Amino acid sequence: DWRPKNTNVRVSLPAVCFVWQIAMIVLFGVFVRYDKESDAHWVELKKTENLTDLDNEFYFRYPSFQDVHVMIFVGFGFLMTFLKRYSFSAVGFNFLIAAFGLQWALLMQGWFHHFDYSTGKIYIGIESMINADFCCAGSLIAYGAILGKVSPVQLMVVTLFGVTLFAVEEFIILDLFHCRDAGGAMVIHCFGGYYGLAISWVLYRPNLHRSKRLNGSVYQSDLFAMIGTLFLWMFWPSFNSAIANHGEGQHRTAMNTYIALASSVLTTVAISSMSKKGGKLDMVHIQNATLAGGVAMGTAAELMITPYGSLIVGFCIGIISTFGYLYITPFLEERFKLQDTCGIHNLHAVPGMLGGFTGAIVAATASESVYSKEGLIATFDFTGKFENRSPGTQGGFQAAGVCVAMAFGLVGGAIVGFILKFPIWGDAADDNCFDDEAYWEVRRTPLKLFTSEFYKQNNSKKSVACYLTH
Amino acid sequence: DWRPKNTNVRVSLPAVCFVWQIAMIVLFGVFVRYDKESDAHWVELKKTENLTDLDNEFYFRYPSFQDVHVMIFVGFGFLMTFLKRYSFSAVGFNFLIAAFGLQWALLMQGWFHHFDYSTGKIYIGIESMINADFCCAGSLIAYGAILGKVSPVQLMVVTLFGVTLFAVEEFIILDLFHCRDAGGAMVIHCFGGYYGLAISWVLYRPNLHRSKRLNGSVYQSDLFAMIGTLFLWMFWPSFNSAIANHGEGQHRTAMNTYIALASSVLTTVAISSMSKKGGKLDMVHIQNATLAGGVAMGTAAELMITPYGSLIVGFCIGIISTFGYLYITPFLEERFKLQDTCGIHNLHAVPGMLGGFTGAIVAATASESVYSKEGLIATFDFTGKFENRSPGTQGGFQAAGVCVAMAFGLVGGAIVGFILKFPIWGDAADDNCFDDEAYWEVRRTPLKLFTSEFYKQNNSKKSVACYLTH
Amino acid sequence: DWRPKNTNVRVSLPAVCFVWQIAMIVLFGVFVRYDKESDAHWVELKKTENLTDLDNEFYFRYPSFQDVHVMIFVGFGFLMTFLKRYSFSAVGFNFLIAAFGLQWALLMQGWFHHFDYSTGKIYIGIESMINADFCCAGSLIAYGAILGKVSPVQLMVVTLFGVTLFAVEEFIILDLFHCRDAGGAMVIHCFGGYYGLAISWVLYRPNLHRSKRLNGSVYQSDLFAMIGTLFLWMFWPSFNSAIANHGEGQHRTAMNTYIALASSVLTTVAISSMSKKGGKLDMVHIQNATLAGGVAMGTAAELMITPYGSLIVGFCIGIISTFGYLYITPFLEERFKLQDTCGIHNLHAVPGMLGGFTGAIVAATASESVYSKEGLIATFDFTGKFENRSPGTQGGFQAAGVCVAMAFGLVGGAIVGFILKFPIWGDAADDNCFDDEAYWEVRRTPLKLFTSEFYKQNNSKKSVACYLTH
Repeated sequence: DWRPKNTNVRVSLPAVCFVWQIAMIVLFGVFVRYDKESDAHWVELKKTENLTDLDNEFYFRYPSFQDVHVMIFVGFGFLMTFLKRYSFSAVGFNFLIAAFGLQWALLMQGWFHHFDYSTGKIYIGIESMINADFCCAGSLIAYGAILGKVSPVQLMVVTLFGVTLFAVEEFIILDLFHCRDAGGAMVIHCFGGYYGLAISWVLYRPNLHRSKRLNGSVYQSDLFAMIGTLFLWMFWPSFNSAIANHGEGQHRTAMNTYIALASSVLTTVAISSMSKKGGKLDMVHIQNATLAGGVAMGTAAELMITPYGSLIVGFCIGIISTFGYLYITPFLEERFKLQDTCGIHNLHAVPGMLGGFTGAIVAATASESVYSKEGLIATFDFTGKFENRSPGTQGGFQAAGVCVAMAFGLVGGAIVGFILKFPIWGDAADDNCFDDEAYWEVRRTPLKLFTSEFYKQNNSKKSVACYLTH
Repeated sequence: DWRPKNTNVRVSLPAVCFVWQIAMIVLFGVFVRYDKESDAHWVELKKTENLTDLDNEFYFRYPSFQDVHVMIFVGFGFLMTFLKRYSFSAVGFNFLIAAFGLQWALLMQGWFHHFDYSTGKIYIGIESMINADFCCAGSLIAYGAILGKVSPVQLMVVTLFGVTLFAVEEFIILDLFHCRDAGGAMVIHCFGGYYGLAISWVLYRPNLHRSKRLNGSVYQSDLFAMIGTLFLWMFWPSFNSAIANHGEGQHRTAMNTYIALASSVLTTVAISSMSKKGGKLDMVHIQNATLAGGVAMGTAAELMITPYGSLIVGFCIGIISTFGYLYITPFLEERFKLQDTCGIHNLHAVPGMLGGFTGAIVAATASESVYSKEGLIATFDFTGKFENRSPGTQGGFQAAGVCVAMAFGLVGGAIVGFILKFPIWGDAADDNCFDDEAYWEVRRTPLKLFTSEFYKQNNSKKSVACYLTH
Repeated sequence: DWRPKNTNVRVSLPAVCFVWQIAMIVLFGVFVRYDKESDAHWVELKKTENLTDLDNEFYFRYPSFQDVHVMIFVGFGFLMTFLKRYSFSAVGFNFLIAAFGLQWALLMQGWFHHFDYSTGKIYIGIESMINADFCCAGSLIAYGAILGKVSPVQLMVVTLFGVTLFAVEEFIILDLFHCRDAGGAMVIHCFGGYYGLAISWVLYRPNLHRSKRLNGSVYQSDLFAMIGTLFLWMFWPSFNSAIANHGEGQHRTAMNTYIALASSVLTTVAISSMSKKGGKLDMVHIQNATLAGGVAMGTAAELMITPYGSLIVGFCIGIISTFGYLYITPFLEERFKLQDTCGIHNLHAVPGMLGGFTGAIVAATASESVYSKEGLIATFDFTGKFENRSPGTQGGFQAAGVCVAMAFGLVGGAIVGFILKFPIWGDAADDNCFDDEAYWEVRRTPLKLFTSEFYKQNNSKKSVACYLTH
């Protein structure tokens, strides 16, 4: 079964980067222009339409955009640095694929959502930037499942297809089904989670245990990962509210997410402590399951779920996610041959799916007494051809949206997985996974050990106290 | 004097997390609702009151909220990672208690400040979120004094009482005394500092020297701590200005804090360098005393202290705080049996107290010529039953506020300390403090040392050059 | 040629800090006051001029200011932590000189740009804070060239002169030449880059190879540096847009920068991979050249360069910068005796210069059809005595501005370099560079090596597997 692997990407990686980047330049040249709020003509528009500078969408969205941007690059990037010898790849390839993904997302989402048939152009602005970052998140989530097992070239392929699939399922869910999903429980987390799981399932490595020595953390790498965890956790209210409705919409979305996240920290700690001898906590749980509250509120945070409703969601999902890390991930690996390095099943796939259904239930039970007549219309955008849609119908479409996201993730991921099986992509052999040295110049650390004094004293204990210097 | 300690928290920690989180859900269900600016009804309110989206408080406060949020979770959390083997607990328990504390704070501060007697509800919004984060800060400061010496269950108790005491002293100081304290020099730092010191004093461990080997930093842990320091330092202008008056209030508060912090960096470096052989700097000072300028401006930053006044405050407090680390903390430990792991005496207690008195002086000397008539009224909120209060009287109340904060901290902390002495909370033995292994699964680092080549060459020097790999 | 060096700064460092800080207090006392938007009188002004709170400049600029602030202190600071044993100095001295520099910058920029001759005062507000941070950036960039080779006292001198020179060249370029340079490709990066290179050239150390063992990274230090890289990369859109025109100006500037940065990541990866055996990536390139897109857009981002124009700039500069790290820096060191620790030649000097010329070209080709009549006036501020300036003339002045920035950097840096050659500043000997122990109390790491079991098994391999604990 074993075949020799070659991690040399000296041709393929530069080729992919150059060709695709040039393609981006050409496509941007043909299609992409500034929208009216980022174009210099706005100075005149402002006068004719009697606007002030503050009416520019920039001021409603930019602080949230920057928070989302930090989540994508530092949050996702550092969260994956927990492996002892794969931190360069974690943060470096995350950087690479997000930088490519956001360009491709500007195009794909532009074609599907903002294409102006009269001019043949896509007009982009601050909302496009947020959505492009969101779109990358789907592929970055997928990276979590295959972390340590694929080459950067494969990750570029995962991102190319991931962004493409994302734009299509998002079009179906948000435009055709007219779902609400401000924080992307469905379109980002559920899709991204199942997309990554399907890829990883196809790429199953029966002899991955040969790299077992590297598939774990050390003290410092767990601390680096906590940087990722905390920036994700802190800025999740911005993630969910970044493209919510102006005013009370953004306000409520941020607050609901803030509350739910706090709740899932406590139940994560509780389950983690219960599961181990002496009640010791496991860093894997603290790094990941504490975030599940943000995922699970991805759809419902925008709605009138109430503060205690948010607490309940966080409470339950913290438990479910931690249980997932304890029992489901090992079970899936053993029985279903599904190797999920970061446990995205427990942090994105399941919380995203449950978050989608939570949103469906909250939508279905919406009423004018709770939202006010105009509040209901504004929250669900019951305008135009959706003017007469009832909350119950909306709930049905929301639930259908979850299924679409899952289906796109599973089917798309399976296809992409098969593409990645071609022996041309530079992935590592089974005994060489989780190792930065495959793709990075890693400087070994020369150490000086000053052992003379202590060696003799402690010789009987078979231990040596010494000083470490570089 | 020695009694066996048991750090097993497998029952107590999950029990506390579950029971208190369920209590939060019930109490939120009974009491907490969206305020009018985060409720869907705002869509109608906007029309009837002729508001625009930008009038929503969210846009005045949310960027500052996120900065404060980063300070609470990354700032405080990473600042305490300086210990070589207690970084998981530093950042992890900080995470846990802030996540619990903010929920309890929403309730306590709601009951004291925003309770609507007509409906029996608390209405929360973005300002509540900022205040809840502030309220947690008091307990996180206290954690600094007892870092390494208490269990997570004890920390939950510290937070439960800390938030409760905070809400009461804050009510007295801000509502009854009608003090100004936007950045919380009094209500947050002075209170939190003395609260932690009193707890630590009661929990005095005569044999703490048995853990001396772990009560210090290593190179990497000092760098992680600098992440905390810098995020606190950079975002302190947002901390002090987050709930200041709209417009010039927030503007001036942020600028005064920015200036004072710059000044305290220089005097901290000066004193640190003067104190050591060869003028070498001490990371403890750089990590902590540089921040004292932000604490000391907690009250006065909002006022017309002038830019050079801010510089002078930063100048003096940088010196005082660094002296504190050099002389006062060792003195307190030796003479007063007060073990203060992070030196919160020098960073929070004293700068908070002095900052409170600085605010009192600046308030007492306020005049219409400096503030303008309406500016004076707006800055000190001399409206309603405080319409006729003079700046001099205001200064007196400000000074009284400092005393209230100190008294609450000292008395409350002493009581909580005695509660924590019960031998049921899972704290570590004296020879086992400052060690993550008591509460965390810590993976030891297997290393390979390639020593063959160099050992022989350098044998005479009794040193071994080798390569370290995992 | 060798002369004994003394790194004792116990007198000089405190003296410089104290004297200069006291000078700041005196000068602030004489000159600096709140501007009208941060003064309490604004409460009345608001009424008389019929303004709302949101018209306060604070709300247009503060979120961007905080992003810039993070770049200055965490971004620049951590980017330079890549050296294995100089991370304290990297982040600590960066902190010190930025804290001093911003105070001096408030004065210098105030005198040159905001001096009110009628009152003899400088009035500062949020824009002054952003500009002060910008002004520091010039000196922090220069620090990159001399990292590891100078004392903190020398760095204070570098900053004192750096800020002074900056204020003058900025006055010439922005005020006299009336150039546009929102993100400071010319005034910050080109100037700062050549300033640092000239200093380093004068301070050439022929025997620097004696410290070669410390002039490199280790695994963890490269990860700390990635924190700096990512915060710089993510917030660069805020850097370039922080003082751009309200509304579409800030909007477009942020978006252009965002797009260009994405593009330079891909070409950096491509060239880095092509250059190494097996296509392995070099962390030096990923940490630095990915940022060149932000530098190169420093002038043009504000203009109607088009989205694909931004991609092209990022594409080219990623290639140029990575080539610089591969070939130019070693070449300059060997042939021109120019030791550039961080390679600022490739990240700031050249991209800044090219970014300035890019801006000149884009300005020269501006037209009313692209900008609209009023958009053209607003973008280039063709008002007052510049009312009749044509885009072509503007382009000429922009190009001249680049030359002024370079000239100030090179000549100023050479002079400062000669001043720093006096043997009184406490810099380290050639065999003691890049070592924190010269200026910091560094705690050595006592390690326990548990070697008993494994030593015997692997003895034949001449390797020892062991567990590392503190």
